[in-house]
Amino acid sequence: MIHETVVTTVNRDGVVHIAPMGVRYRDGEVILMPFRPSATLDNIVASGHAVVNLTTDVRVFAGCVTGRRDWPTVAAERIAGARLQSALGHLELVLVQECGDEARPTLRMACVHEGRHAGFAGFNRAQAAVIEGAVLVSRLHLLPPDKIAHEMAYLQIAIDKTAGPDEHEAWQWLRAAIAAHAARRETTRTTEESQ
Amino acid sequence: MIHETVVTTVNRDGVVHIAPMGVRYRDGEVILMPFRPSATLDNIVASGHAVVNLTTDVRVFAGCVTGRRDWPTVAAERIAGARLQSALGHLELVLVQECGDEARPTLRMACVHEGRHAGFAGFNRAQAAVIEGAVLVSRLHLLPPDKIAHEMAYLQIAIDKTAGPDEHEAWQWLRAAIAAHAARRETTRTTEESQ
Repeated sequence: MIHETVVTTVNRDGVVHIAPMGVRYRDGEVILMPFRPSATLDNIVASGHAVVNLTTDVRVFAGCVTGRRDWPTVAAERIAGARLQSALGHLELVLVQECGDEARPTLRMACVHEGRHAGFAGFNRAQAAVIEGAVLVSRLHLLPPDKIAHEMAYLQIAIDKTAGPDEHEAWQWLRAAIAAHAARRETTRTTEESQ
Repeated sequence: MIHETVVTTVNRDGVVHIAPMGVRYRDGEVILMPFRPSATLDNIVASGHAVVNLTTDVRVFAGCVTGRRDWPTVAAERIAGARLQSALGHLELVLVQECGDEARPTLRMACVHEGRHAGFAGFNRAQAAVIEGAVLVSRLHLLPPDKIAHEMAYLQIAIDKTAGPDEHEAWQWLRAAIAAHAARRETTRTTEESQ
């Protein structure tokens, strides 16, 4: 079972890096599988720790895949890291073991502190649609345009019916990224044809 | 903005009724819009209270739309009601005002107690897929079979990639309900043709 979270790490200079990541909970540990190369992997290996943020602020997910990586953080409690200010809760983790393959190692992390900051307000279908849209945007280069258009049209229904202002804003970022990608693809195609 | 929750109410005999419901948070109040007739509406008007359960146990959502309405509850704290045992949190509400139209009244509810029982584990795409599937199943009689099949095939992807045992179980209930509906529709059609 995979949960979509936001992982915050710090580099040697203490600069915070924010990245959406699917995590697994297993036998009391949290399993992260960041790709190599990635700032998240470098930071965890160098510092030995990370924070998993449990947030329903979908602007962070949509923001990070559309170039908006700067979100308010506050200092963690037990490690020299940071958590998202908007997190409903967070887990402060230390690296237990790095194993698995070279391209995508498996990091076993132990929880040294759990913070709870706000209650879960219930499922929101628009938030789920933004998460699906963010997955689409992170794979734009792999997907045919008609599949992207079709899935976005389907997800739009939940946005129209159940979104609040944050979900609408996140959705617009995703739509703009898809439009920009389509325009770039068109330019490339036209340029190639004219050569 | 609409959040998908589970509302628990009690009738005059103290029997608990469990129903998934989309709710709105507005100016510190919770807005419920149950259809008339419904046990939830009758119970709230008679008792003057309700509990909104904030749960990620999607078996309750899928269960209630497929005839599985009996889920473990525990007594509420401040009202003579009950909350879901599996709730991450719950809101105990008292009725402030009933207004709006006859078929679907608007109930303004004030929160007299908020309970928090477990932390939010992060978004899970399979849970969101079950919620969408439960919405589909609640509208089977309104939807063409090919639309249902197409959407279920799309949602299946998130189930395959990110579900745990609870999500798989809930998903099977939804698939079985759709298959049973299709079989009934086929029987009706065949019977009508043979007459």
